[in-house]
Amino acid sequence: MTESGKPILYSYFRSSCSWRVRIALALKSIDYETIPVNLLKDGGQQLAIIEYLEETRPTPRLLPRDPKKRASVRMISDLIAGGIQPLQNLSILKEVGQEKQLAWAQKAISSGFNALEQILQSTAGKYCVGDEVSMADLCLVPQVANAERFKVDLTLYPTISRINKSLLALEAFQVSHPCRQPDTPPELRA
Amino acid sequence: MTESGKPILYSYFRSSCSWRVRIALALKSIDYETIPVNLLKDGGQQLAIIEYLEETRPTPRLLPRDPKKRASVRMISDLIAGGIQPLQNLSILKEVGQEKQLAWAQKAISSGFNALEQILQSTAGKYCVGDEVSMADLCLVPQVANAERFKVDLTLYPTISRINKSLLALEAFQVSHPCRQPDTPPELRA
Repeated sequence: MTESGKPILYSYFRSSCSWRVRIALALKSIDYETIPVNLLKDGGQQLAIIEYLEETRPTPRLLPRDPKKRASVRMISDLIAGGIQPLQNLSILKEVGQEKQLAWAQKAISSGFNALEQILQSTAGKYCVGDEVSMADLCLVPQVANAERFKVDLTLYPTISRINKSLLALEAFQVSHPCRQPDTPPELRA
Repeated sequence: MTESGKPILYSYFRSSCSWRVRIALALKSIDYETIPVNLLKDGGQQLAIIEYLEETRPTPRLLPRDPKKRASVRMISDLIAGGIQPLQNLSILKEVGQEKQLAWAQKAISSGFNALEQILQSTAGKYCVGDEVSMADLCLVPQVANAERFKVDLTLYPTISRINKSLLALEAFQVSHPCRQPDTPPELRA
């Protein structure tokens, strides 16, 4: 919190974790201050922030009311934030070594996206679960951006691609985008 | 569901993910049938099952009522299930190669446990968050068992070790233990 009571987000423009939280804040119209941190602490932890936002600022909902749909949203979120993203974060890629990085990341993302594409075929409407934006969508968009960075062939994932495109058309996903953050370097701005 | 309406758990005796769910089922006294699957699909997804159980069978609570405490429980759960466990699951270790496996797993677990030990010092009571068993505890015990398997020096983590010991004394953690499952091989039974 700042002295005026505004929440502070410690954020790194490129981090998927920060991006997910920025989308949630934008969807819930919560005004906040960004403190850029040039240090990555990846992992799924930021889902805890999103669940906290959901409980303290319930409108608009990021989790559907129906328990089965909620479970679908959480399954998809966990698959991305716990099953795909940790395997291709910066510290792991460093560990893997420069030579094998690209192949490693592509394999982690593709095998995750194979599962995800199948799940989405039974859960998706306009977005990941039905026609309302949910926590699953907050996880999807940053992960697709990572897939693009690692040159994964997205034509293999038509449902993922379609949903991603619909989401990127929404204001909350645009203002939170890595290319528009206070710490985005000039050459990556858009 | 079986024909009699009993839920079915597709479970692998050694999987951390299955074990977490087994603890939740035991704590909530839900009778279920196990179908052993000799195939590992790791990742954090099973937290979605636990959240679903929590919503449909709210007693006993696995998430505290207070939003800040809930956030602590989820942060710890996500750190373990999304930040540590995916880095040392079977498919990743296979990818890393037999030679480097042990060092890789030890590093992933130690760096996660360094963070976790610090967090627990401010959240723990008898268990991970205060004095009630929560979802965070369901994640802790299987992860400590993995750490032991990979010979991580647990004396460096006194809070983790203390909580783990208290939890293993509870019935729900004993009946769900990998050494007591239908698919546990005889040489690993206890």
